[in-house]
Amino acid sequence: MSYAKLDAHCRALGALEHALSILGTDEATNMAPGGGEERAEAMATLSGMYHRQATDGHVRDWIETAKTEVLEPQQKIALGELERSYINMTCLPSDFVERKMRTSMRSEQLWRSARPNGDWQAFAPALEGVVSMMREEAAMRAEVLGLAPYDALMEQFDPGNRTAQITPVFTELKAFLVDFLPAALAAQEERLAKRPLKALSGDYPVERQKALGIEMMKAVGFDMNHGSLSISDHPFCGGVPSDVRMTTRYRTDEFLSALMGILHETGHGLYEQNLPKDWAHWPSGKARGMSIHESQSLFVEKQIGRNPAFWNFALPLVDTHLQENWTMEDLLPHVHLIKRGKIRVDADEVTYPLHVILRYEIEQELLAGTLEVKELPEAWDAKMQASLGISTLDDPKNGPMQDVHWPSGSFGYFPSYTLGALMAAQQWAAIARINPEVERQIAEGDFSQVNEWRRDNIWSKASTASTPDILRQATGEDLNPAYFIAHLQARYGQ
Amino acid sequence: MSYAKLDAHCRALGALEHALSILGTDEATNMAPGGGEERAEAMATLSGMYHRQATDGHVRDWIETAKTEVLEPQQKIALGELERSYINMTCLPSDFVERKMRTSMRSEQLWRSARPNGDWQAFAPALEGVVSMMREEAAMRAEVLGLAPYDALMEQFDPGNRTAQITPVFTELKAFLVDFLPAALAAQEERLAKRPLKALSGDYPVERQKALGIEMMKAVGFDMNHGSLSISDHPFCGGVPSDVRMTTRYRTDEFLSALMGILHETGHGLYEQNLPKDWAHWPSGKARGMSIHESQSLFVEKQIGRNPAFWNFALPLVDTHLQENWTMEDLLPHVHLIKRGKIRVDADEVTYPLHVILRYEIEQELLAGTLEVKELPEAWDAKMQASLGISTLDDPKNGPMQDVHWPSGSFGYFPSYTLGALMAAQQWAAIARINPEVERQIAEGDFSQVNEWRRDNIWSKASTASTPDILRQATGEDLNPAYFIAHLQARYGQ
Ligand SMILES: [Zn+2]
Ligand SMILES: [Zn+2]
Repeated sequence: MSYAKLDAHCRALGALEHALSILGTDEATNMAPGGGEERAEAMATLSGMYHRQATDGHVRDWIETAKTEVLEPQQKIALGELERSYINMTCLPSDFVERKMRTSMRSEQLWRSARPNGDWQAFAPALEGVVSMMREEAAMRAEVLGLAPYDALMEQFDPGNRTAQITPVFTELKAFLVDFLPAALAAQEERLAKRPLKALSGDYPVERQKALGIEMMKAVGFDMNHGSLSISDHPFCGGVPSDVRMTTRYRTDEFLSALMGILHETGHGLYEQNLPKDWAHWPSGKARGMSIHESQSLFVEKQIGRNPAFWNFALPLVDTHLQENWTMEDLLPHVHLIKRGKIRVDADEVTYPLHVILRYEIEQELLAGTLEVKELPEAWDAKMQASLGISTLDDPKNGPMQDVHWPSGSFGYFPSYTLGALMAAQQWAAIARINPEVERQIAEGDFSQVNEWRRDNIWSKASTASTPDILRQATGEDLNPAYFIAHLQARYGQ
Repeated sequence: MSYAKLDAHCRALGALEHALSILGTDEATNMAPGGGEERAEAMATLSGMYHRQATDGHVRDWIETAKTEVLEPQQKIALGELERSYINMTCLPSDFVERKMRTSMRSEQLWRSARPNGDWQAFAPALEGVVSMMREEAAMRAEVLGLAPYDALMEQFDPGNRTAQITPVFTELKAFLVDFLPAALAAQEERLAKRPLKALSGDYPVERQKALGIEMMKAVGFDMNHGSLSISDHPFCGGVPSDVRMTTRYRTDEFLSALMGILHETGHGLYEQNLPKDWAHWPSGKARGMSIHESQSLFVEKQIGRNPAFWNFALPLVDTHLQENWTMEDLLPHVHLIKRGKIRVDADEVTYPLHVILRYEIEQELLAGTLEVKELPEAWDAKMQASLGISTLDDPKNGPMQDVHWPSGSFGYFPSYTLGALMAAQQWAAIARINPEVERQIAEGDFSQVNEWRRDNIWSKASTASTPDILRQATGEDLNPAYFIAHLQARYGQ
């Protein structure tokens, strides 16, 4: 039976993914400094093995034959998702894939060396190479998938996401934020004038911060039997669903950045831990995509973790672990602090979408050829001025050179961040609608009903439907920016 | 060129080995408790992938063709060793390999459940199954390799080792030890009567023991840029040559067991770290086998680590890290303590070979059919009485049920331990012959010349020759028990 052959095929790929994932985590957390070269070599070889097996011609035949076999509904969905993944993986000729790997590796290296000095002139030619390559790639993907070029790129990260739905939503959101940001900043200034930001008392030992972090992780539902928390330079959530490896980074003079980072990664981890185990090796059993993943992390970090109700439960824990006896009025101004800035990764939830929408607009123009790389610094600056009132013209390092995405050949990825924020707000609103007690529950440290809804409507769905379909089935409507806008107004409006 | 194809083939296998090795280490040191099932599944799948690729029919063709190509001497050696490894891996039919895996897995499980209660009757039928299977395996390997059955089994662990050389050596060693042990025990009793064993002062925090261990590791040559030390229930030396993962286990009421364990594993680690890097992915660039590996660990643990000269250097470090201001007369009776016992893994360097030779004799009889499993408890007891003067008849748990080797289907492995001890003594003697300053150097913490000899004569040789050939080339003679016997006489004789 061809379906059985595909099951074994997925299991083999799953084992290679498992290995690559743990090797990656191990590299960041446990590898000896001198082990990097051999590790890179081993991982490249295993990735090649994965790609060769995943794109083997037999797979196409097995898929075709399996379609004629008698299958359960879940098996049909699994087969469809495998086919989607197979097509996305095989739609580029292998000589192009190799060329892309070389081009983007070189351009990423150049970016790493040119960025610290903001040397735009040195970096621009490399980016030009990537852009022209991405135009080719988008055209090829578009051809195979029958999609518009930019949609065909987004399809890799979030199946079903289309500019036709996203652009109007982003346009509305941008219009709102451009007006809202100055008002929210003014309101904040007024509050801080009355009551200045409480200074941190100072010394927070790593072990105590870790104990606090783990208590929070467990409280919001993370299963320590299937995961752990360790330290790495760049926090991430890796590993495998049966063993989620979260990492964070601690400063001893400050505790909120590590704690909010832990809550964010816990959101990613909860999604992974609660994917359907029986389908773990099939694409349909894996996390749906980047925007839903980010909706899960932002749900925990922003919808829960910056909600005053949550701090009703969390403040006593901060006191227990860090001997920091803060009131709600001490804490909220810290976790709700907003400010204009040039850097996306440092942005708060009000300004972050403006950084993303700028990139979303620019990368479409770059791909379409209506903007060229040499015009990028001016285009970036103009948009920054219009949306955030900041100029980056004489600071390309913190302008168009700040992100790794473009030099590494990731186009169509940026919108996922803000789509995640919008979907998290929409999911929260859907929960609050059917469960008016949700804030009271969270204030008491009871996350069971929130998580039950998320398990039923998001986690257990894995990749059994497209991104917009999962959102629609979960919340009863299409992507709607009204929830996020209302959320910002309520939290930052006055 | 077929040689180039084999190079790529070895590189692919090397990547899978790298993954399996790091996954194994990760499992023991970092895996979440609930991650075991998925990890076992992934590792089994990757092992199957490894075995399928390693034994692929193309490999035989490439080897045959490569033999006709123009190759450098090192390439010829690599090709020969690959062929040896290929033959050893393909000499069993795959249905037998599967049956063996199932049989030994079941018998090992049964052993784990029956052992704690010493339930010999429950365990014996499983062992019978393994023994009859091992008779089949030995016959098949013997047929393909043109070796006697037991030699064919040893060939997997130590290429070139033959009973024709080993049996006379073990016979001589046993005869010596049976006389020597009572005399050595009497001499020890006399010494301890005059000066009783110094009690340990008590509390040794894990962090301090670890710092002491790492200082010792570095001193004897371990490269912390390509390795690390962590904690696991069962100490081991795993990882890969570019990133050797050593582990140990600490007791806080005692420091010598962890420290000597660290020195032992450091010996394994030094061997791995100093294998020739350019050949890392070919079988000829890997560690030669179990007995040479054990000679390297025992060299560091016994020849260096229990040498009074070493403690001249090491005692001040114990004082620095553990505030334990001991004299040589306090310490040596601890590290030279010997006693009769039933358990191999608890044995000292005088009694250990008697445990091994007993198993070496019995497993040959079991394979030859001159002994049956039902006669094993009596046979074991008789040999224990004759060599160590201890009865195990009413304690099968600490008699023939104590080791995992037989239930898991490892026959021909046991001699490696004592061969390692003999070879370590023979290597030490070879060094002392050409470098009369060796003890003075060690007393000063200078291990450079000892390691230079080992690098030139053992480590860099990797698997470019058979086990006996490497020993002969390094020391100028065949395996000779006189060195180990002289070593024991000098250390324990009076
Ligand atoms: Zn995230
Ligand atoms: Zn060992």
